[in-house]
Amino acid sequence: MNEQTKLRTIGANLPRKDAQEKVTGAAIFTDDISLPGMLQAKVLRSPHAHARVLRVDASKAQALPGVVAVATRDDFDGMSPFYGYLIKDQAVLATDRVRYIGDMVAAVAAENDATAYQALDLIEVEYEPLPSLPEIATALADDAPELFDGDKPFGVANPYGTGASGYVYPRKNVCYQFDYETGNADAFARCDHVFEDTFTFSRLQHMHLEPFVSVARWTIDELEIWSASQSPFVVRKELARVFAHPENKIRIHVPYIGGGYGAKNACKTEPLAALLARKARRPVRLRFTAEECFLTNTQHASIHRLKTGVMQDGQLIARKSEIFLNSGAYADASPLVAEKAGYRINGSYRWQHIDTKCYCVLTTTAPAGAFRGFGGTQAAWASESQIDMIAHRLGIDPYDIRMKNLLNLNEPYVPAESGIDSDLREGLSLVADRLGYRNRRRRRGRGMGLSVVVKDGGGANKPAHAFVKATTTGGVIVGSGTTEIGQGSTTALTSIAAEVLNCERDRVSLTPVDTHASPYDQGTFASSGVAIMGKAIEIAANKVKREVLAFAAEDLDCDPGDLVLQDWTIRRGNEVHPLAPMIMKHFGGPGFEFVALGYYKLPADHDAPLETKIPYWENGWGGAEVEVDEETGQIRVLQLIISSDFGRAINEGACRGQDEGGAMMGLGQALFETMVYDGDTLLTPSPLHYRVPLASDLPDRFQSILQEQGRGPGPFGTKGGGESGILTVASAIANAVEDAVGVRITDLPITPEKVLAALDRQKADGEA
Amino acid sequence: MNEQTKLRTIGANLPRKDAQEKVTGAAIFTDDISLPGMLQAKVLRSPHAHARVLRVDASKAQALPGVVAVATRDDFDGMSPFYGYLIKDQAVLATDRVRYIGDMVAAVAAENDATAYQALDLIEVEYEPLPSLPEIATALADDAPELFDGDKPFGVANPYGTGASGYVYPRKNVCYQFDYETGNADAFARCDHVFEDTFTFSRLQHMHLEPFVSVARWTIDELEIWSASQSPFVVRKELARVFAHPENKIRIHVPYIGGGYGAKNACKTEPLAALLARKARRPVRLRFTAEECFLTNTQHASIHRLKTGVMQDGQLIARKSEIFLNSGAYADASPLVAEKAGYRINGSYRWQHIDTKCYCVLTTTAPAGAFRGFGGTQAAWASESQIDMIAHRLGIDPYDIRMKNLLNLNEPYVPAESGIDSDLREGLSLVADRLGYRNRRRRRGRGMGLSVVVKDGGGANKPAHAFVKATTTGGVIVGSGTTEIGQGSTTALTSIAAEVLNCERDRVSLTPVDTHASPYDQGTFASSGVAIMGKAIEIAANKVKREVLAFAAEDLDCDPGDLVLQDWTIRRGNEVHPLAPMIMKHFGGPGFEFVALGYYKLPADHDAPLETKIPYWENGWGGAEVEVDEETGQIRVLQLIISSDFGRAINEGACRGQDEGGAMMGLGQALFETMVYDGDTLLTPSPLHYRVPLASDLPDRFQSILQEQGRGPGPFGTKGGGESGILTVASAIANAVEDAVGVRITDLPITPEKVLAALDRQKADGEA
Repeated sequence: MNEQTKLRTIGANLPRKDAQEKVTGAAIFTDDISLPGMLQAKVLRSPHAHARVLRVDASKAQALPGVVAVATRDDFDGMSPFYGYLIKDQAVLATDRVRYIGDMVAAVAAENDATAYQALDLIEVEYEPLPSLPEIATALADDAPELFDGDKPFGVANPYGTGASGYVYPRKNVCYQFDYETGNADAFARCDHVFEDTFTFSRLQHMHLEPFVSVARWTIDELEIWSASQSPFVVRKELARVFAHPENKIRIHVPYIGGGYGAKNACKTEPLAALLARKARRPVRLRFTAEECFLTNTQHASIHRLKTGVMQDGQLIARKSEIFLNSGAYADASPLVAEKAGYRINGSYRWQHIDTKCYCVLTTTAPAGAFRGFGGTQAAWASESQIDMIAHRLGIDPYDIRMKNLLNLNEPYVPAESGIDSDLREGLSLVADRLGYRNRRRRRGRGMGLSVVVKDGGGANKPAHAFVKATTTGGVIVGSGTTEIGQGSTTALTSIAAEVLNCERDRVSLTPVDTHASPYDQGTFASSGVAIMGKAIEIAANKVKREVLAFAAEDLDCDPGDLVLQDWTIRRGNEVHPLAPMIMKHFGGPGFEFVALGYYKLPADHDAPLETKIPYWENGWGGAEVEVDEETGQIRVLQLIISSDFGRAINEGACRGQDEGGAMMGLGQALFETMVYDGDTLLTPSPLHYRVPLASDLPDRFQSILQEQGRGPGPFGTKGGGESGILTVASAIANAVEDAVGVRITDLPITPEKVLAALDRQKADGEA
Repeated sequence: MNEQTKLRTIGANLPRKDAQEKVTGAAIFTDDISLPGMLQAKVLRSPHAHARVLRVDASKAQALPGVVAVATRDDFDGMSPFYGYLIKDQAVLATDRVRYIGDMVAAVAAENDATAYQALDLIEVEYEPLPSLPEIATALADDAPELFDGDKPFGVANPYGTGASGYVYPRKNVCYQFDYETGNADAFARCDHVFEDTFTFSRLQHMHLEPFVSVARWTIDELEIWSASQSPFVVRKELARVFAHPENKIRIHVPYIGGGYGAKNACKTEPLAALLARKARRPVRLRFTAEECFLTNTQHASIHRLKTGVMQDGQLIARKSEIFLNSGAYADASPLVAEKAGYRINGSYRWQHIDTKCYCVLTTTAPAGAFRGFGGTQAAWASESQIDMIAHRLGIDPYDIRMKNLLNLNEPYVPAESGIDSDLREGLSLVADRLGYRNRRRRRGRGMGLSVVVKDGGGANKPAHAFVKATTTGGVIVGSGTTEIGQGSTTALTSIAAEVLNCERDRVSLTPVDTHASPYDQGTFASSGVAIMGKAIEIAANKVKREVLAFAAEDLDCDPGDLVLQDWTIRRGNEVHPLAPMIMKHFGGPGFEFVALGYYKLPADHDAPLETKIPYWENGWGGAEVEVDEETGQIRVLQLIISSDFGRAINEGACRGQDEGGAMMGLGQALFETMVYDGDTLLTPSPLHYRVPLASDLPDRFQSILQEQGRGPGPFGTKGGGESGILTVASAIANAVEDAVGVRITDLPITPEKVLAALDRQKADGEA
């Protein structure tokens, strides 16, 4: 499958299309949008983790000169103020209760920031504190109060549906539960060994450079929003419901986005900005500070209880998992994350029995939502740690236990699911070789660890629409709902059109997303942009190409099959016919544009466990070598080798950037990052307190191996990627630490303190 | 043909879609666009009608604090600075010569208007005056200097082509000539009478409320422009050529336009705004004052020499026409106007021989370009005046001579042309009846006049692309390149989609034009928006409807033919199935949009005289009754009755608005409006000096008769309209004046002075 056609743009590793703009600062982000008369908005947030809101009096704030509008729960006229990805439980501003420190209670739109801040101080709020439930355990305790009993959330149990009916939680303070079972539970009885281990994953921040920000303007009854949103059509749908306003009168523009990693997947600032703008009758910019971003969305902390049955020879047989996700105060994307965290917990191995339960637990902390890897990060951490632990217990090399149990090419992930589309053993072998795993010299204090992950990619049920236009002189313009969030979609999508239309990539431009003009897209998520939307663009570009060739064939009185399109000329044998004069002759005036829509959607398959089959698998492999200082517990990463199968890399630099960027996020998760709470209070409330990897933390040897196994359904065999890079790192490092010093850390991040404590225990056990 | 299906939105005469926005001032026009860091631009203009530019020194201006960029002819690096509709003869800023008072020489972009104006004073320009040629006669004189001999223009002879080859004028200072001949010249010899008359049409202003304005921004090498342009794709093409820049890197947005009447049909402010923004490296707004608009574009003054052969019984036989258009200093749209002024000179009558020559004469005055009616205004004035004069000379009633000679329904306008698609006699009869023409009591000082006009509509060769999208909840969004210039396209185009999709018009929105996102359109001209673009929208909406019905039929397991779409529900017999849940069930997540492209273009027909057949005819009828005060020469319009055949009125109010608005412009042309020159100097240089009709000038009885003869090729039989209203008025009034007092004015406007002078001559002739 590695034989690939020589292409012109694909594989040429051109510079990023947006590089110059971004490096020079010329690129336009939402925060650069400035409308005449625009006001600045600031938010009053709850100082209580859980409290009843007895009184909100904004009259003094409203009277402050320079304040144009103050919004509170009293401004919900004609609205359904609750929103949420699936479960509508989060109010635009607090109604009867606040549920975490930072919950939004009121907001001010004023002529400038200073006035807005001043006005916040004048808003009087009276609270009646209620018991807080900061942890999964406290929220699940028998005597825990219900977080939602007054203003009942609504939504639907089926995350793929929608509705406005009252929604019933599966358990108290559990807003969603995912169950999956296949095979026979008797399988455990046949196992030689059953191992039970628990892993915890820490609460993390997305740390997107650009904060949550939007600008809203009402023109009579048309709402226009500029937003840093990964999923503008989702936001439009929510706003339509929240404001009881027709979708055709809501228009959302998305300039460049400064990173999102899942956090910008649904409404954040938009409903409140729209409410303030409606009240102020002027445009409003609502931009959160970095501290507010910490209070707005997080990655789920989680607890994974894995019970895994194996044979003596290392054959994996059965796994029962109980996963608890800390959803924070509101459901947000928790139900979807739970589905994926549960579905991905068993990794890319062959099982005879799987029994998974994943619970979304509401707590009085900041809401958790989508995060790169979407539950898979947590799953991979737990599963790939336990695989190593099992190998050690059985005296099998962790490499060998993986090789033995990995799914074969084309073998279904689970029954009725699509087959694995990478040679998983080839990938693991590549990484192990680069790492020098198999011929390493064992020495106390140094160790290597491996990890193999699989993530269902592409947003299985996702329809993709795109257009391609070609102007009289051969300028190509591509439009789709895929947002450029830094992942390189502009680079990739223009390259696909350039390849099909056989022109320089410089002759192809992308239209920024605008829900009024861009063809529909469900959102930029699930690594779907290049493979799924790219496919729609490939289809549209091919239609344009066919139309152009048919047009030229008519002009030249020949068969389209005899013609080749190249650089907006038509080649017939040795003849070269420029297209522009041909078009002008036919259409006159200012000429013409060839235009076509492309539509791509995999057929739904309701037999598949997640209602449709997965279009492709993001398979990733990672290996780490560490040196552990047994005096300090300090871990030095000597080598970090990661690899992903992109099917075909549309742009090598962009693919490596995604993979290596993901791996650096993974390194942060493994070693440093954690949102530390003291009860309900966040002790690391900003980037100043929250430790991310620095350039000096780079492993001594940090390499990505780009695989192009060629089996993706996307253009030219691409699969899309960008999420598998993050998945392998934490488990590979934990596995390497055990390999180095024999202690197993099951609780992220792997800090020197934890390593030292484990070494102390090891020593004590040894002495005992 | 008057039997018409009962429709829901079409014919319901709903309020204008943009009414509330515009009445409240909320509507966004180009001048409302304000970008961060935006500079204001001002232009230094020539004080000479014709001069060599010896020296331009902008150094002092450039040094003024607050000035960011000064542009002169020295800034044309990498550019082809000459632009023009077809003939590329107008430089972004003067190169070697200036050719009229007001020609642009230099421009400043500064932090504010005051600084920019101050800087203009610091620019030193040295001129060497050359002989001026203000009139058609002086420009055609044997000893006249050539206006273009240094920097030769380029372009092509065929106005429907394009190219960059050197362009050769047909005669000295004649930039274009249109010739058309059909039948045999011997026809004149068979005529009982041959009448030769000359008519002149005065130089007029468009008087669009919104001035020429654009905002330009370069982001690295992407040029983005907001412009009040009727034809953004034309502007894009010109800018691409002028800046040698790929079309995919030029993006033009068009907000609401505050009127254009043809003046905003091609580049005006855009190339200069782009040049300044490129040099300043900041966004630039270039907005002309009302005075500058007077110096930028005008309607062609013209001279018409008509030689018409007739039989004693009033049968029209042959006409030879020589038409001279005063094109001003640059060609602009003159070639196209010449084609139409020539093609339309013979009106809607049956001829055995036609011989037309129309010349575009360059003079040292402001350029003339497209104007509502596009040459037809001048043609109708001359032709419909002469028809009356001939009737009087033959002693035939002007009504009868028209009835005798009007083309029949479906009779080709000229050989090989499409047939006339209105019953012309029915229309004339309607107007005459409403006027009380046939049973009027004759009395000195009071008179009635009639006029029948025809204008080929629709932009014959024009391709139209549009898209229609329907959201999950039934919001409909329509996109096309048709700009809303006040003509009501938003109202009409959304109504067409609403009708097809059987929903409230409020559920349909239009996307403002953006060359990156809107489907291609050659421009908003030739009354083509509703009929031609409307057709593309109708096609797209029908595709969406078919897709929706097919989707629902699959869900309901039945035949699409059994289903009816109504208000985003599916009706099957008495069952009502809402679509949104059906869509959510199938697509999940945020749902789906149905989207389709519509494409409409009449087939080209190279046998037709103008290279393709006319898609429809804008037929108009007018009648006036006047009272002439023989003491003062003052004309009081007692009645003005106008009528047009819209085929089918998509929105009655909008159609009447177009027709009546046009008629008021015609009233201005007839009685008041004229740009008065003293040599090269304009004596009426602003709206303060230039007399347009006031509310008090409204005729005592002013009525429009809306005909819907149902034969248009557009949606529901519509033809588009808005230009015929202006065409009949001047001739109807001149005809009424002759009917009232026996004097014939052949020179517009029909001022009291001219009437008095004619009455004096009449008296002198009577006494002689």
